[in-house]
Amino acid sequence: MEANVDIECEGGKIERNESAIDERGMIRQPLLSKNRINTSSQIAIVGSNVCPIESLDYEIIENDLFKQDWRSRKKVQILQYVTLKWTLALLIGLSTGLVGFFNNLAVENIAGFKFLLTSQLMLQQKFYQAFLAFAGINLVLATCAGVLCAYIAPAAAGSGIPEVKAYLNGIDAHSILAPSTLFVKIFGSILGVAAGFVVGKEGPMVHTGACIANLLGQGGSRKYHLTWKWLRYFKNDRDRRDLITCGAAAGVAAAFRAPVGGVLFALEEVASWWRSALLWRTFFTTAVVAVVLKSLIEFCRSGKCGLFGEGGLIMFDINSSKPDYNMVDLLAVTLIGVVGGILGSLYNYLVDKVLRTYSMINEKGPTFRVILVVIISLLTSCCAYGIPWFTNCVPCPIDLEVECPTVGRSGSYKFFQCPPGHYNDLASLILNTNDDAIRSLLSSTNGDEFRITTLLVFFISMYSLGIITYGIAIPSGLFIPVILAGASYGRLVGSLLVSFSNLNVGLFALLGSASFLGGTMRMTVSLCVILLELTNNLLMLPLMMLVLLISKSVADNFNKGVYDQIVKMKGLPFLESHAEPYLRQLVAGDVVSGPLISFSGVEKVGNIMHSLRLTSHNGFPVIDEPPFLEAPELCGVVLRSHLIVLLKGKMFTKDRRLTGTEMLQRYRASDFAKAGLGKGPKLEDLDIKPEDMDMYIDLHPITNTSPYTVVETMSLAKAAVAFRQLGLRHLCVVPKTPGKPPIVGILTRHDFMPDHILGLYPGIDQHK
Amino acid sequence: MEANVDIECEGGKIERNESAIDERGMIRQPLLSKNRINTSSQIAIVGSNVCPIESLDYEIIENDLFKQDWRSRKKVQILQYVTLKWTLALLIGLSTGLVGFFNNLAVENIAGFKFLLTSQLMLQQKFYQAFLAFAGINLVLATCAGVLCAYIAPAAAGSGIPEVKAYLNGIDAHSILAPSTLFVKIFGSILGVAAGFVVGKEGPMVHTGACIANLLGQGGSRKYHLTWKWLRYFKNDRDRRDLITCGAAAGVAAAFRAPVGGVLFALEEVASWWRSALLWRTFFTTAVVAVVLKSLIEFCRSGKCGLFGEGGLIMFDINSSKPDYNMVDLLAVTLIGVVGGILGSLYNYLVDKVLRTYSMINEKGPTFRVILVVIISLLTSCCAYGIPWFTNCVPCPIDLEVECPTVGRSGSYKFFQCPPGHYNDLASLILNTNDDAIRSLLSSTNGDEFRITTLLVFFISMYSLGIITYGIAIPSGLFIPVILAGASYGRLVGSLLVSFSNLNVGLFALLGSASFLGGTMRMTVSLCVILLELTNNLLMLPLMMLVLLISKSVADNFNKGVYDQIVKMKGLPFLESHAEPYLRQLVAGDVVSGPLISFSGVEKVGNIMHSLRLTSHNGFPVIDEPPFLEAPELCGVVLRSHLIVLLKGKMFTKDRRLTGTEMLQRYRASDFAKAGLGKGPKLEDLDIKPEDMDMYIDLHPITNTSPYTVVETMSLAKAAVAFRQLGLRHLCVVPKTPGKPPIVGILTRHDFMPDHILGLYPGIDQHK
Repeated sequence: MEANVDIECEGGKIERNESAIDERGMIRQPLLSKNRINTSSQIAIVGSNVCPIESLDYEIIENDLFKQDWRSRKKVQILQYVTLKWTLALLIGLSTGLVGFFNNLAVENIAGFKFLLTSQLMLQQKFYQAFLAFAGINLVLATCAGVLCAYIAPAAAGSGIPEVKAYLNGIDAHSILAPSTLFVKIFGSILGVAAGFVVGKEGPMVHTGACIANLLGQGGSRKYHLTWKWLRYFKNDRDRRDLITCGAAAGVAAAFRAPVGGVLFALEEVASWWRSALLWRTFFTTAVVAVVLKSLIEFCRSGKCGLFGEGGLIMFDINSSKPDYNMVDLLAVTLIGVVGGILGSLYNYLVDKVLRTYSMINEKGPTFRVILVVIISLLTSCCAYGIPWFTNCVPCPIDLEVECPTVGRSGSYKFFQCPPGHYNDLASLILNTNDDAIRSLLSSTNGDEFRITTLLVFFISMYSLGIITYGIAIPSGLFIPVILAGASYGRLVGSLLVSFSNLNVGLFALLGSASFLGGTMRMTVSLCVILLELTNNLLMLPLMMLVLLISKSVADNFNKGVYDQIVKMKGLPFLESHAEPYLRQLVAGDVVSGPLISFSGVEKVGNIMHSLRLTSHNGFPVIDEPPFLEAPELCGVVLRSHLIVLLKGKMFTKDRRLTGTEMLQRYRASDFAKAGLGKGPKLEDLDIKPEDMDMYIDLHPITNTSPYTVVETMSLAKAAVAFRQLGLRHLCVVPKTPGKPPIVGILTRHDFMPDHILGLYPGIDQHK
Repeated sequence: MEANVDIECEGGKIERNESAIDERGMIRQPLLSKNRINTSSQIAIVGSNVCPIESLDYEIIENDLFKQDWRSRKKVQILQYVTLKWTLALLIGLSTGLVGFFNNLAVENIAGFKFLLTSQLMLQQKFYQAFLAFAGINLVLATCAGVLCAYIAPAAAGSGIPEVKAYLNGIDAHSILAPSTLFVKIFGSILGVAAGFVVGKEGPMVHTGACIANLLGQGGSRKYHLTWKWLRYFKNDRDRRDLITCGAAAGVAAAFRAPVGGVLFALEEVASWWRSALLWRTFFTTAVVAVVLKSLIEFCRSGKCGLFGEGGLIMFDINSSKPDYNMVDLLAVTLIGVVGGILGSLYNYLVDKVLRTYSMINEKGPTFRVILVVIISLLTSCCAYGIPWFTNCVPCPIDLEVECPTVGRSGSYKFFQCPPGHYNDLASLILNTNDDAIRSLLSSTNGDEFRITTLLVFFISMYSLGIITYGIAIPSGLFIPVILAGASYGRLVGSLLVSFSNLNVGLFALLGSASFLGGTMRMTVSLCVILLELTNNLLMLPLMMLVLLISKSVADNFNKGVYDQIVKMKGLPFLESHAEPYLRQLVAGDVVSGPLISFSGVEKVGNIMHSLRLTSHNGFPVIDEPPFLEAPELCGVVLRSHLIVLLKGKMFTKDRRLTGTEMLQRYRASDFAKAGLGKGPKLEDLDIKPEDMDMYIDLHPITNTSPYTVVETMSLAKAAVAFRQLGLRHLCVVPKTPGKPPIVGILTRHDFMPDHILGLYPGIDQHK
């Protein structure tokens, strides 16, 4: 059975059945469905609970109403619009910065309190009580996070980056950016990280940023009575896409305090379409985040923020060590890259397997999800508290600048069960916050701080805990587990090579995390910049680039990047930026199939209602016919949502005549603006009387008269390029030979999916 | 009279007359020409010496030959192709890195010798001899640079970034990437910088990188008998575009030692189309550059490179100073940003004016160009040597770590005419290499090193010298003059505010240069990263972002960025990434005009020859007609260059019949691969006998059967978006109503130029 990942759907399953995903004016033949069931990424084709996955409209719908509005708009409106865009960017930056800081503050204080309590109990030799306190606090926090996630917003589980990536590719999954998701993402992430799970807050911050941007962009939430009228300008997918890109960038900037890295992350990993104007706006947003964080950290420096100290907002300053490397180091670095790439792709493979297993458990209901969270929490607590008992104590080094053993909450020389003057190096890593563990691993001050066996045990624990934790019902980022495993691996290699190499173990740890990040996430420039901004050491740049390049190249031979893998596993119809080569063997006409449902320019209300009920298509071709014209002509494409709004207005006529000018007086383009997902008027809400069914309605004012078209003999590869580059939802296929009906069919996103095409043409050679 | 900038054309003028630029199968009506002459950016419409500006083909020409090749290609070929791409990226990185280093080495040694000689003569109180030596050396170097540039490769003058930008937008100006241009660019830049001009080597390095990439990409130069057969894979504009993007990035990386900055610069400023695969490849190239530079600098550290010392490869390490700023500083920074934005846009304005004036002089011939270079050189020498005489000597500060006054070649405490124990602060700035002056200005060790009047005088000199130097016939970058002026301005403000501010004058200088760069070049992220990589201080990031944002926003109110301005002034038909709003008022059919020249699927040789001779169109529609079909149908588009190759083969038939299969056996797609500009077979070379003229030839095998099409009623704005996003050269306009001829016309780049459209429709409201 295929995995069934139900993160987007509240209490239901993801459905990609025919009626949910077909957007064009066409009824699919049973043949297609049969073919599609057999393909591997089709998740839960059977089932009753339809969860809407809707495509987004990035095309400008140039209908008469739009043109009328465009012509009558005044300079002051344009100015207002521009000002608003920048104001929104500012607001997104401000709120994401604040949320990011609040997140850190809360985690540091909760986790700090937990570790303080545990260490005080251990100091009094109350080891069992210490374990109970530690595991108990973890369990309570984990359960809260799990309950929030399982019952209120299942969409908030996981990293969120794959969903945001899919959204920016044009796929709107249910409630992925809803206010409830935002709420659970923020608090679930705080609770989950504080509960000691091997998860990060970075992925969730990206999702949080995107949710904030969406909330601001749609002018608040009507459901929660938070609306701002002046934000009504952005009721279209195009502007929302820009805002959400800014939000995602702001999220990375807030998570890592890496403003430039945030922009690049949004550019390289998250966004599917990019314009130079967007670069400029995301840059502004992340600059605002940087300023907000800087001011708040300044404020906290005087100790007003409880336990928020050095630990908050990771910034691993390894600036002091000047790298000076030789040939041997370069070889070592190459080795790190190769092995890191292999381990990274193995990580992806295992995460995928675990996710598929978990999804079967999660499917059984929210209670099972919470139970899974509880089990993993107990396991994590046992590991963190149990494993250090098996290791020997290390005598504290003499003439150390910092306290050893550490008594307070942070510090990397934990006494654990050790006699005075000794510390437990494994406990210092594993019984600590993730951020502190990373800081210790990257630190260069004492190369012998951690023994080789310690590093090995820690590496294995982090690698496995990271894999089994992702996929449970809490917001869980992938960055931190990967960095943790990578840094311990790198430091391990560094400790082994210490006699041959000029580089110190801290720098090796940094290169190790770079190799793991490259091996799992497959980014290059953005990871490089994020790591630079994190560690504040520009001189490592050439080595870091080398490691990233090698590990990415190695890992690319085995599988896809982890986010792409999750997108695929969730069955989201993601459009790749390049066309698959085998598409060249087909033409556009090969993948469209009939019969086509189209409307006449002035259509009978009954026909429209019937077609809307019969299908769930989102776009219908409109054809101008006699008596208005001599021969049928393609007028354009009309959207389902616009049809419903128009029908609601009931401007029907008894006879078949053009009523466009009257409609233009009554309606404005903004009446047809897109509401949030699932918010607009619905077909079921329409109250069309039986006598109305025989009346006529003029569709011309809402028909997009400039749809993009391709000829049916156009190579499918080139049609795919046009579809992707222009950000389309519907692409009309017109006949080549004159004298045929004016439209052959409409191509949508699903027609370009490999599974669909290979289902239609199983004999095609995929590698040609 | 309009300015006539003739940088691209060897010995001639840029021509944008009708026959040179019209690429579609259409004869323009005289009406249009009349309209176009009056538009402002049309340069030199009249004239006899046609300099070809050709558009590039980024579309994949899917004709039968291509499909045959595609079907028969083997896995090993694909692997070869991929390996070759990466090998080329490696080679581009290596060679650009080497050239960049050589450039620095040469400049440092030549300029170092000059300053050593001058200072030794001054030490002996031989002031006149010192001036003569100084000005004489400058003059010789300048004349050599000017002669190289004026006589051998006029295309090498100026920054080169605008031309590379235009190339990547799809405009191939004559000899802009030719081997001769590369040669002159490298040596001209060395000579020009060493001659003491206020110019940088950064812009020229970008151009150099692009030239190297082009040379490698087209498999060497046939003219100079340097060819590599195994590079034959890249004989198309699409792959070349990618290579040249890598080259441009490598150029920035080599110039600033900023690998990440290089990638971002290519992304933000230079490239018009971007793919994530490209990010990854440019990143690799710049990493190679970084490694090459690092190794060579290591090698030189032991003193084996003559006078190449600290001065080489600018890297202004201001890492020591920790910025800690307050409210007053933020206000000061805002002020710097605003004033920097205004001064930056004024800089652009003045550069534009000066360029237009110079172009009138340059037009008169190479001798006049060299004279202009000589005049500016003398002026610069007089300024550098003369101005410091008007300033008083400053006593050396006590307990200074460095030598004061400096006797050697570098150092920022020049003794000039001063008594022992004193130094001349103005001479230290102005009688020094540009790199050293910047380093002194950004240095934070001694805040009182330069007096306020000194900074003011230096700022004014650099601002004006920078403006009058750009545009003379030497390779001249804009980065360094702008950074010089900006840094002195910033340090001036810092010195004025020294009692109010926590920031030291060195940081103020950095912010000042950021504000000027933002004000002239209007980049954001890439400038930010380049400055960070240059100064190695990540903690300045928030302030730097703030300054860049403010100065760009302010300057954008006045004019365009300096590179865009130059592109426009040169009359290059640059396609902007967004469609102008007023295009919505028109449809695609409004800008195409007849009569159209089209070919039949099997056409008479005489007709083809006639059309090729009559027009200079580069694309012709092919129409399948009776008797082969019942009604005429659009078969596709055929390119002029392919037609000429096909005619050369003389596969003619007496009667009108299809010979496609025979042709497919004889030809391969690579026979039609694009040669370098002006290298392919020419129409004049064809030897078609009179009796051949009545024979027929089958055009089907070379007809691109999947051209992108728009319907004639498509909004022009949306057609423009498709044209730009898909990187097209020809866009077919098809009729809406059935029964008409199957094609209305072809849109090319020039049909989307504002001047053309506003010429056709002068009454249009540009702001709607």
